[in-house]
Amino acid sequence: MDKPPVKIDIALVHYPVVNKNGETIGSSVTNLDLHDMGRAARTFGVNCFWVVTPFRDQQALFAEVLEHWRSGHGARYNDKRGEALRLVEIVDDIDFMLAASTEKWGRPPLVLATCARPGMATIGYDEARQRLAAGEPLLVLFGTAWGLAPEVLERASGTLPAITGCGEYNHLSVRSAAAIILDRLQGER
Amino acid sequence: MDKPPVKIDIALVHYPVVNKNGETIGSSVTNLDLHDMGRAARTFGVNCFWVVTPFRDQQALFAEVLEHWRSGHGARYNDKRGEALRLVEIVDDIDFMLAASTEKWGRPPLVLATCARPGMATIGYDEARQRLAAGEPLLVLFGTAWGLAPEVLERASGTLPAITGCGEYNHLSVRSAAAIILDRLQGER
Repeated sequence: MDKPPVKIDIALVHYPVVNKNGETIGSSVTNLDLHDMGRAARTFGVNCFWVVTPFRDQQALFAEVLEHWRSGHGARYNDKRGEALRLVEIVDDIDFMLAASTEKWGRPPLVLATCARPGMATIGYDEARQRLAAGEPLLVLFGTAWGLAPEVLERASGTLPAITGCGEYNHLSVRSAAAIILDRLQGER
Repeated sequence: MDKPPVKIDIALVHYPVVNKNGETIGSSVTNLDLHDMGRAARTFGVNCFWVVTPFRDQQALFAEVLEHWRSGHGARYNDKRGEALRLVEIVDDIDFMLAASTEKWGRPPLVLATCARPGMATIGYDEARQRLAAGEPLLVLFGTAWGLAPEVLERASGTLPAITGCGEYNHLSVRSAAAIILDRLQGER
C-alpha cells in the first residue's frame, strides 16, 4: 500500500554546472541518469523529476527517448520504465522550473542544493525529512559534471550535507548520490 | 580523516541470476555498473568489489576496461576512477569468491543476499551494521538482470530487507540499490 504522498520534486541540472576546472559549463543529458534517477524518484514518491537543459537538440532527443518508454515499444517491453519516466519534465532553465513548481504547490518550495564538498551544509537530513513529512514542498537540486555552479547554490534555500562514508573520497555518481539522498529523506525507517 | 576500516566486500553476480520470466540465466557485464558501484564501494570503505561472471570473453573485455582506468590514459584523465576501480576483482563463480574471501579474512564472511521482493528479509540493516562495526566480515551479494537466482539466495547466511520508499514500486537499478544499502550499512549517521 502506498504511503500518503509528500510534496517532493528533484531536479537534475545540466546548466549552469561546473567542470573539472571550476568553469561554468552546460553538460550533456545522459540517458542512464534519466532511467536510474527516474526509477529512484518513482520508488521514493517524487512528484516531478525536472531535467534542466537549455539545449534544444538535447531536449528533442530526450523527448523521443521518453516517448519510447512512456508509450512506444519500450512501454510494452517494460512498463515499469514508463512508470518511472512519466515523472520526467524537461525544462529550459531554473527560473521556469521554480515558477512552475511554485504554481503547482501554491507556494515556493524549499529549494535544497546538493554538493559533494564537505562543509557546505546548512540544513540536515533529519530537518529536511521532518519538514517534508509536515507538508512543506521540497525541491532537491542535483548537478551533473563537477556539480552545481555557485550561482545555483546561492539561489537555494539551503544545502544538504555531502554524503560521506568512511573517508575523504567524495566521487559518487549523481545517480548514486540521488538514490542515497532520496532514501535519507523518504526511505522506510 | 578515514574511519578505521571494516571488513566489507560487495559482489555483483552475473550468473546465476534470473530473467523476467524467472529462468536462470547469465547476464552481460555492464560498464557503468563497475563505475557506479566501484565509486560507491570506495566511498563506503568496501575492501573488494567482486564481479562474478563465468564468461571468458567478458572477463577479458573488462580486464581491458579496468586497465584503462587503473593505469592507462583514464588514470591520467581522472585518477578518482582508478581509485574506485582498483577495488574490482573479476572472478569465475561464487565458490571461488567465497573461498578467496574466507582465506582473506581468516574465517567465512557473513554472506548477505539482497532482493527487491518484500517479505524475504531475515536480517535487518541495524543488525548487519552492528555486526560489521563489531569486526565481523560481511559480503553483500547483488544480482543483475531480475535478481539473484534461488540457489544463490539459499547459500547466503541471510537476506537484507528490500529497499522500500513510499509504495509497491520495487524497480531500482542495482546501482541505486547498492548505493543505498552501502549508505545504510556504513554511511555517517
